[in-house]
Amino acid sequence: MRDENPLETRNAGLRTLPRRVTDYGDVRAFTGAFDNLGEFENAAVRMRSAVPGESKMLPSIRAAIQACALKDGAVISFHHHLRNGDHVLEMVIAEIARAGLKNITIAPSSLFPVHAPLLQYLDSEVVTGIHTAYMVGPVADAVSRGALKKPATMCTHGGRARAIQSGDLRIDVAFVGAPTADAYGNINGVDGASACGSLGYAAVDVECARWVVAITDNLVRYPACPIDITQDHVDFIVAVDSIGDPRGIASGTTRPTTDPVGLQIARTAADVISLSGLLIDGFSFQTGAGGISLAVAAAVKDVMQRRNIRGSFASGGITGAIVDMFHAGLFRALFDVQCFDLSAVDSYRRDAAHLGMSASLYANPHNRGAVVNQLDAMILGAAEIDLDFNVNVTTGTDGIIMGGSGGHADAAAGAKLAIVTTRLNAGGYPKVVDHVTTLTTPGETIDVLVTEAGVAVNPRRGELRHRLVAGGLQVVPIEHLRNMAGHGASRPHQKSREERIVAVVEYRDGTVTDVVRAVA
Amino acid sequence: MRDENPLETRNAGLRTLPRRVTDYGDVRAFTGAFDNLGEFENAAVRMRSAVPGESKMLPSIRAAIQACALKDGAVISFHHHLRNGDHVLEMVIAEIARAGLKNITIAPSSLFPVHAPLLQYLDSEVVTGIHTAYMVGPVADAVSRGALKKPATMCTHGGRARAIQSGDLRIDVAFVGAPTADAYGNINGVDGASACGSLGYAAVDVECARWVVAITDNLVRYPACPIDITQDHVDFIVAVDSIGDPRGIASGTTRPTTDPVGLQIARTAADVISLSGLLIDGFSFQTGAGGISLAVAAAVKDVMQRRNIRGSFASGGITGAIVDMFHAGLFRALFDVQCFDLSAVDSYRRDAAHLGMSASLYANPHNRGAVVNQLDAMILGAAEIDLDFNVNVTTGTDGIIMGGSGGHADAAAGAKLAIVTTRLNAGGYPKVVDHVTTLTTPGETIDVLVTEAGVAVNPRRGELRHRLVAGGLQVVPIEHLRNMAGHGASRPHQKSREERIVAVVEYRDGTVTDVVRAVA
Repeated sequence: MRDENPLETRNAGLRTLPRRVTDYGDVRAFTGAFDNLGEFENAAVRMRSAVPGESKMLPSIRAAIQACALKDGAVISFHHHLRNGDHVLEMVIAEIARAGLKNITIAPSSLFPVHAPLLQYLDSEVVTGIHTAYMVGPVADAVSRGALKKPATMCTHGGRARAIQSGDLRIDVAFVGAPTADAYGNINGVDGASACGSLGYAAVDVECARWVVAITDNLVRYPACPIDITQDHVDFIVAVDSIGDPRGIASGTTRPTTDPVGLQIARTAADVISLSGLLIDGFSFQTGAGGISLAVAAAVKDVMQRRNIRGSFASGGITGAIVDMFHAGLFRALFDVQCFDLSAVDSYRRDAAHLGMSASLYANPHNRGAVVNQLDAMILGAAEIDLDFNVNVTTGTDGIIMGGSGGHADAAAGAKLAIVTTRLNAGGYPKVVDHVTTLTTPGETIDVLVTEAGVAVNPRRGELRHRLVAGGLQVVPIEHLRNMAGHGASRPHQKSREERIVAVVEYRDGTVTDVVRAVA
Repeated sequence: MRDENPLETRNAGLRTLPRRVTDYGDVRAFTGAFDNLGEFENAAVRMRSAVPGESKMLPSIRAAIQACALKDGAVISFHHHLRNGDHVLEMVIAEIARAGLKNITIAPSSLFPVHAPLLQYLDSEVVTGIHTAYMVGPVADAVSRGALKKPATMCTHGGRARAIQSGDLRIDVAFVGAPTADAYGNINGVDGASACGSLGYAAVDVECARWVVAITDNLVRYPACPIDITQDHVDFIVAVDSIGDPRGIASGTTRPTTDPVGLQIARTAADVISLSGLLIDGFSFQTGAGGISLAVAAAVKDVMQRRNIRGSFASGGITGAIVDMFHAGLFRALFDVQCFDLSAVDSYRRDAAHLGMSASLYANPHNRGAVVNQLDAMILGAAEIDLDFNVNVTTGTDGIIMGGSGGHADAAAGAKLAIVTTRLNAGGYPKVVDHVTTLTTPGETIDVLVTEAGVAVNPRRGELRHRLVAGGLQVVPIEHLRNMAGHGASRPHQKSREERIVAVVEYRDGTVTDVVRAVA
């Protein structure tokens, strides 16, 4: 690998990267999934001590903005447990705009279509920076077209926790949407009209932010109980009419696919797990909330019940499908960073072994050991996967941001068996390609690709390949799947791009896997 | 107040203090209970990230000492939830001695008679420093006589959390006695032969120590569940035969006093609470594990049941007596930093609203709001109390260390109504005196003294005095109680002291309330 242009560098995924990005800074190129482990320092945290007897209640979000002395250029954070039902981010930014502040960087753990009202604040430069692990909807579209002044930083869920703890991402004020809170700042996510369950993403913010403001629509007698976030991490509490619409929490797919192709892929993925040797007592599992993922869960459940296998834990964002497996005795515990649906919220409220976990405990690569490190099998989606098994879940083939790692790259790195499931084509585009449009998750951390036309095994995993072949699975070279995907595709791969960088894609350790350039 | 000696200073309790203490450093004199609030910084924490797939299990304590690269002069911490049944501290120090290390400072949250084997390591200068909130027994006796090379630092429970978070007390290795742990470092206190309940004191250590070693006698399948301390805070795990003797957990008095004088004091204390205006719905309460304290709890329980009062919470070290009140519906929640008996352990295991709390959440004056700040009434003991309502719980009148603040000064500062209960005399010594032998808890934070000969109210609390008088209590000037106590006493007050300082007594904010000089 030669670097002929002094302004450019290449990372281990062989993406050409600028050495420096304006309004982002120097680019540390990704070199390998496990290269940056060792000694780390969690940054010092400055805070204000409480005065005994002094109230923490403030009459309005405006009063909280003033109490925290929020200034132009500040960084403020949000968590996304209310997902596409969240009202908090909009309320806060609107008040910041009314206060005349500019040049704010927002650091929500994710952004959804419900956050479309943010668009006007990008235009007016109230908000000029975004640091997030996932964004989809009008804001993501607008960022892709250059509506945000500075490049967005797209991190992973674990990388966000790492960045906050290390001081790479310094939060001036963390705004916490609190489904239930008391007047001294004890918070839970399980009670109230906006109950969303685990508050795992907010847990890191409140430990490291300069100021913490809880915004609640269910102010209860002291002490709120149970407690997800304790009072020693909260400066102020503001009561509002509504922090969100719980119907928006289950905003993704919540039912297993019924499509025959999807079902076939799911069954094959379950076969891969079954043949891997990992599906024994103590098995641990993570999957997302997509239709194929839920179908894989159903298929794995079936195998575990038939073989009388008792797993150890399931983790991640928790769905009703996983709760059902837990209730069926197939897992002893759930590690829940976020409830994907109301069935998960209900279980988190009732089941003692349905444990909340912080984003750091979940996936931070620089703490003393994240839960992803204990995962056996992880089911992952992909917008694209390439011949090196690199995965793109950040942009469409058209270059428009439509997601981001979330926990994708984290779980892939941690799990013993990281399985990508995808159809060969979607919307006319091939999904198995020569090179992914945007590199989100490095191929070295992906073990298997499962499609309707067969299974490809990462050449690094020869022993696994042998097991799958011996088990009768149709194992093919990934080039074969790339060829079939190309044959079935009809549309061009790319829209024209501008030079301007609209997002920097960070790996969980803060190195850069890719940049996203503006769509014309 | 004049400072005529440039080497000396005086604090707000008018104790003469040296400006500097060898092997302790500069003395910041205590100026007032609420003087040092405002902006604070939690220190940066250096740690080593886990490597996925790497085991955290080590074969021995010796291996852990080596893995943490423990050196001469290091600071190591322990928690005291196993109280007088703890085996961990002795096991670790013995191994450190065998490794040939010297000049270690130990920072146990408390020391008990069971830690007598430490004496040999003071003599051999394996251990030359002690930082603790409480010590009683042979080690405390020996320290009082000068057996420890450096002066001990006697802190409060909340002050210890503050010191650790701020970096005033930098822990190289935290050794955590883990009643239950899994191989990746998830720990709970509720299962196993050495179950001790809440692990609240260890919670701060594991967040701030350079290295964290869990020592367990109940290694369970991953994940341990429930979890009091999560894996992201633990570097290594060592399995041993036994971490302690659970019979030692309930090492204090665990039954209400039956002595008529003690009962009278307890009833009067309950009357004080009752007349204070605080005993209404939402009432919150803390008491210790002494015989009078437990009798006060019984009397308060009686009043609450008769008047159908539903309190909000009880906090602190939790006893079976408090659990009984909780089970009777008199409190909605318990905040538990430490279980004082096995009945409390059992409740912590079973009752969802019996909440663990860290020492910082409990009592750290520099976080965003400790639980003690929400306390209505607190029952406190005293070795001595003086005319300024200053309390000594650190030494006997003879100058021998026989305790320390623990949470005494913390709860006194936080509670709306801090009540000291004591007999006028004990062991022939007067307990109400002109000046306490050692100043542990400043009188400005004490509201009422209850004795068998009447009640004295701090002159700062005129309104409270009025309520008690109106309610028919025998309220007398504290000088009156001092006189009566003096009349009943037979023994001399003091042993002869040397100049040498054997302990520095810190207030919760790190300022110094007093020093303890060696007993001849």
